Amino acid sequence: MDWLKDDERLDYLLAENLRIIQSPTVFSFSLDAVLLARFAYVPIQKGEILDLCSGNGVIPLLLSGRTKAQITGVEIQERLYNMAVRSIVLNGLDKQIQMIHGDLKEMPAKLGHALFDVITCNPPYFQTLSKEGQNQNQYFALARHEIACTLEDVVSVSSRLARPGGKVALVHRPGRLMDILTLMRQYKLEPKRLQFVYPKEGKESNMILVEGTKDANPDLKILPPLYIYTHANEYTEEVKELLYGKL
Amino acid sequence: MDWLKDDERLDYLLAENLRIIQSPTVFSFSLDAVLLARFAYVPIQKGEILDLCSGNGVIPLLLSGRTKAQITGVEIQERLYNMAVRSIVLNGLDKQIQMIHGDLKEMPAKLGHALFDVITCNPPYFQTLSKEGQNQNQYFALARHEIACTLEDVVSVSSRLARPGGKVALVHRPGRLMDILTLMRQYKLEPKRLQFVYPKEGKESNMILVEGTKDANPDLKILPPLYIYTHANEYTEEVKELLYGKL
Repeated sequence: MDWLKDDERLDYLLAENLRIIQSPTVFSFSLDAVLLARFAYVPIQKGEILDLCSGNGVIPLLLSGRTKAQITGVEIQERLYNMAVRSIVLNGLDKQIQMIHGDLKEMPAKLGHALFDVITCNPPYFQTLSKEGQNQNQYFALARHEIACTLEDVVSVSSRLARPGGKVALVHRPGRLMDILTLMRQYKLEPKRLQFVYPKEGKESNMILVEGTKDANPDLKILPPLYIYTHANEYTEEVKELLYGKL
Repeated sequence: MDWLKDDERLDYLLAENLRIIQSPTVFSFSLDAVLLARFAYVPIQKGEILDLCSGNGVIPLLLSGRTKAQITGVEIQERLYNMAVRSIVLNGLDKQIQMIHGDLKEMPAKLGHALFDVITCNPPYFQTLSKEGQNQNQYFALARHEIACTLEDVVSVSSRLARPGGKVALVHRPGRLMDILTLMRQYKLEPKRLQFVYPKEGKESNMILVEGTKDANPDLKILPPLYIYTHANEYTEEVKELLYGKL
């Protein structure tokens, strides 16, 4: 098997003893995905986990270090799906992780309802306004703009796929917090854990991590804040541990 | 004028050169009110400010140090209203601050609609379940439980009283964040600034400060977190400054 295509490279996947195929012109995972993979609740011994908007499979790969549950990733872009499949095989994880090439909106019909214990998603962040405002690289445009799926698609599909009591964890930008919380409640994914990520002390938050539970009662916990950089512009100890220590 | 009744005492009001009448069996202001008074946006030179659930008038008194605007406080409990009036006169602030003894739900009919530039409220935090769960002291029960007004009352009344573009600032518990944000959006008070207060580093948040703007577009900012205590259980520098330094 020819592992790498074009300008792809094989990167180390942080704390895990894993490698991941990335490409500067197609897709590289972000800190957002790493933080989501560590924020999400996962069952340790068994269960069914689903990752939507899976990209090059970074979240399924990272989650595999925390759980023995089955993990399914869904990615609409064939090129990224293909990178994910190769990374999974390369790491010998094809018994635990399977990738689906498809549109998340078709997953309830394809996979069935109320099946998953945990669903994760690092969705496109930006609302699609004009073609001009979008990234001209179509791989990036689809991954970053709500072209193929909106936030409401992600929340409504997750709600249908999650079992009662199942958890759905998302990462997004604070500017969309209102929309996320409103949509989650509307689709019966009651927000239960919320964490704000700050670039450094004294700055406004630029990332949110939120987890809702299907059909649960209201009781939202606000976790301690997470800072990415120290004032000396180095990763904080907490982030270093997430990235290089035990995930 | 007989300034103090029963077990009332005359306390210094923190950073301001002010005194405030309090009573351990009736009402003493909390840190929550102080944080709200410093969190809320206020116009400096002129305008109309309204404080709902005003208690012994702590928020109007604190705000008077930050603005020359007219400030109106509304308190339903006559005993607390009376304490507030005496404190205002005692500080020579009766030209700037007026108190109204009444039910906030009657204020739109009494005061008019779309009048105020800023509305603040430190409402009762606890939903009323059973009589048994309420504080047996009726002063405390009314101040702490949603007996005389619910959160929805506070938000809907504030929305009617605020002018377009006017700001409404509330302090509450994180467990009600979902309800607050949902109600604010429902009543056209779009949440724009949100700050989480943590008892100390590494603990979950136990207080939220939120400000909405009447008829505004969505764009929520998450402010840097505020910690109350250091690990040595002393006030943090930031809180010391709020309490004892320049407000």
